[in-house]
Amino acid sequence: MTHQGFTLWLTGMSGAGKSTISDRLMERFRAGAAKVELLDGDVVRTNLSQGLGFSREDRDTNVRRIGFVSELLSRNGVIAVVAAISPYRATREEVKARIANFVEVYVECPIEVLAARDVKGLYKRALAGEVGQFTGISDPYEPPENPDVVVRSDRESPAESVEKVWRELQRRGLIETA
Amino acid sequence: MTHQGFTLWLTGMSGAGKSTISDRLMERFRAGAAKVELLDGDVVRTNLSQGLGFSREDRDTNVRRIGFVSELLSRNGVIAVVAAISPYRATREEVKARIANFVEVYVECPIEVLAARDVKGLYKRALAGEVGQFTGISDPYEPPENPDVVVRSDRESPAESVEKVWRELQRRGLIETA
Repeated sequence: MTHQGFTLWLTGMSGAGKSTISDRLMERFRAGAAKVELLDGDVVRTNLSQGLGFSREDRDTNVRRIGFVSELLSRNGVIAVVAAISPYRATREEVKARIANFVEVYVECPIEVLAARDVKGLYKRALAGEVGQFTGISDPYEPPENPDVVVRSDRESPAESVEKVWRELQRRGLIETA
Repeated sequence: MTHQGFTLWLTGMSGAGKSTISDRLMERFRAGAAKVELLDGDVVRTNLSQGLGFSREDRDTNVRRIGFVSELLSRNGVIAVVAAISPYRATREEVKARIANFVEVYVECPIEVLAARDVKGLYKRALAGEVGQFTGISDPYEPPENPDVVVRSDRESPAESVEKVWRELQRRGLIETA
């Protein structure tokens, strides 16, 4: 495949499916020998954001820092795939405004479904008041108003979600496959 | 020009000439339409390291963070030019070990010369005990044991220093100019 540099930013609540979808997208990009980097929670916590907490200020710093790295990669022809809760709309917009090719993917899932799934047991604890500043329960999540793609992990398979994103990237001329 | 991805890491004390040399290198890379990014003190403080101080731990975190970003750029074919005091040898070595194409430049200048120049008035204040944890005076600076290039801003012009670095990059096949 050939591609431009761009940032593919997946936002959504914990457990909504950001990692699942970004991992599959990474496989597909790598299969096409694309220049691509994944900035997900683990990578970011380890390498960029040690010491930051869950205050709005710290969350915003985290998002801006990921945005900075994505910008450097994107403007040099590399694909940056970001999977980050990134709960505040204004901060996402700020990052978006800095990056020429920016595609926002809203990984949506109703909170009832997230609480029922509760893979890590976090929702149960948050609903019981045991976890402070939990996004969507005791801390805000502001959904995108005009996301470029919306995927619904409660209604679509991961393969379908990936396909939606892929088509949008093709439609914009950001990727081309033979 | 054509080039590979690599990290060009300038280490040295405050005022030794890292910024002067890296700025001139940036001009030369840009004139050759290279894919290149500068990670210097200003860029890093603004975008990566807000909130970090001057303890060994914080300085190491800062250096590792710059190293992480340099690694992402380098391995995707981009030149990362770093100008950072990066006082601790072990931490520089740790970053070096992670990055395939890593060129360490020691920007050397005797402390007497730095104190006499004292562009920002920092050495006077540090020598008077008014600035704690000042590298080279009240905080350690560990020079590289085997730097790839040594430049001496008290004996060479910036143009000469840049030329030395340039030749080393050519010698390694990291850059090619027509």
